[in-house]
Amino acid sequence: MVNILFADRPEMWSDYAPHLRRALDAEGLTHAVIAPEMEPQDVDYIVYAPSSFVQDFRPYARLKGVMNLWAGVEDVIGNETLTAPLMRMVDPGLTDGMVQWVLAHTLRHHMDIDTHIHGQDGEWRSGRAMTPLMSRRKVGILGLGELGGACGAALAGLGFQVMGWSRSPKNVPGVTNYTGEDGLNEVLSNAEILILLTPLTSKTENLLNAERLSRMPKGAFVLNPGRGGLVDDAALLAALDSGAIAHATLDTFRVEPLPPEHAYWSHPRVTVTPHIASETRSDTASEQIAANIARCERGEPFLYVVDRTDL
Amino acid sequence: MVNILFADRPEMWSDYAPHLRRALDAEGLTHAVIAPEMEPQDVDYIVYAPSSFVQDFRPYARLKGVMNLWAGVEDVIGNETLTAPLMRMVDPGLTDGMVQWVLAHTLRHHMDIDTHIHGQDGEWRSGRAMTPLMSRRKVGILGLGELGGACGAALAGLGFQVMGWSRSPKNVPGVTNYTGEDGLNEVLSNAEILILLTPLTSKTENLLNAERLSRMPKGAFVLNPGRGGLVDDAALLAALDSGAIAHATLDTFRVEPLPPEHAYWSHPRVTVTPHIASETRSDTASEQIAANIARCERGEPFLYVVDRTDL
Repeated sequence: MVNILFADRPEMWSDYAPHLRRALDAEGLTHAVIAPEMEPQDVDYIVYAPSSFVQDFRPYARLKGVMNLWAGVEDVIGNETLTAPLMRMVDPGLTDGMVQWVLAHTLRHHMDIDTHIHGQDGEWRSGRAMTPLMSRRKVGILGLGELGGACGAALAGLGFQVMGWSRSPKNVPGVTNYTGEDGLNEVLSNAEILILLTPLTSKTENLLNAERLSRMPKGAFVLNPGRGGLVDDAALLAALDSGAIAHATLDTFRVEPLPPEHAYWSHPRVTVTPHIASETRSDTASEQIAANIARCERGEPFLYVVDRTDL
Repeated sequence: MVNILFADRPEMWSDYAPHLRRALDAEGLTHAVIAPEMEPQDVDYIVYAPSSFVQDFRPYARLKGVMNLWAGVEDVIGNETLTAPLMRMVDPGLTDGMVQWVLAHTLRHHMDIDTHIHGQDGEWRSGRAMTPLMSRRKVGILGLGELGGACGAALAGLGFQVMGWSRSPKNVPGVTNYTGEDGLNEVLSNAEILILLTPLTSKTENLLNAERLSRMPKGAFVLNPGRGGLVDDAALLAALDSGAIAHATLDTFRVEPLPPEHAYWSHPRVTVTPHIASETRSDTASEQIAANIARCERGEPFLYVVDRTDL
């Protein structure tokens, strides 16, 4: 018998159940039991969301592995009760989803679409300054990993002038690469649209602070589909108030859901999206999880194991 | 002496004047005079917007050519007072501008961005149905000419499933081509997002009528950056009222500017943009015009002459 606990918010179960069942059957695990509730001592694997009811892993005595549903592992990696292997989610749909969120909002701000969405008042605004072509627009991306690299390549493929900043040198097609503090300043001082996709670490927390915001071109746009902690929220709100930053479209926040009383909700120059840029997709994610469990059952090593040795 | 009349709305002159002067000088036409007012009998060339003050060409007795500023010539081609050669605008920026308008609004509707722009009310809408990936979204394009082909290739390049309908068979990378009435019905019945980019002729007037709208998937989106006359406006408004069509984003209209009292302005499921998808760009357009005038002055044939023999 193989027992798999589905540990995410209860409303996610109806979405995942058919995909996981189909994927397990396809891997020959027709005998595996998967359910959203199970006695801890019976559980072999946990399909896991870090926000779920499982926070203390010690009762799960025979646990063989934890399959994370989220791309980010920072909310579980420090959990000292977890001693079984932790696998990161590598869902091809995650990257494609991020690319389309970034393309859509970059083009939205590039084309000033909001002016037209809000301006359905009978005024024919053809006299406004013409939108530049994509080939004249400078876009900066902080972070050129899996997600940032894919977004940079897609934007460059459309013709945007893309400047990418990364800790170590990266080679992304069409993207000019910058590193180091000087490189960061060069990207910031040119980016008319800035996209935050660097991992959140002690070095990148509050990366976009008041000093760095002040280097950006007046009227620039900020997109944050990365991590809420990358932004100094008070500094960003001040830059939006002054008009130094024209608009911020934010998908990630320090506290999620973003509390209803947070200033981001009511600020006319902010668009909040509810952490949708990079959602795990139940169909493709279920296939990856089932394949990894099947590997373990056959005695093969897990794929995508998180390295926790240098914490 | 070469005399060139700039015949567009007076407010366009300040935009074009420096670009035209530079382009004429670069072509060796430093002696050419270009101005927004001139005695008709002195005019050699007219840089022309069909909406301008010149509607009767008969007083322009020594006219060598009319350089149209617009890509479309339907508002001048039937003018029987014009006997001099008419040149169409072939500005590379026109195509790039159309592509970015189409990409931006296709992604906007694909991602349901309006829900987030309008929904800044503190409600964290993460429970909504997930946006599909671009690879799962069917986009239809009616018309695969210069503009439709470029848009189709760009959308297919991003991963959208693109179905294109054209009068004669076309080969556009990544785009499945359909022709004929059956082909049109096939595209309409699958297109979750439909883009109108076919030329306006007696055969395509009211192409998108009630019968054809009724074939589209419920909740589809319509984008019209092509020509206002392609749409039966009353039929589209009825389909929007019923929810059969979720939203229409329209850039072209039968009468422009769209009158303030028109139902499109106030309809909650319509976005009007003021004929900006394919704007002639003063810098690149000026270079094309100056080069063509220089050809004529050297005794070479004009480029981009409109064929008016089969009117």
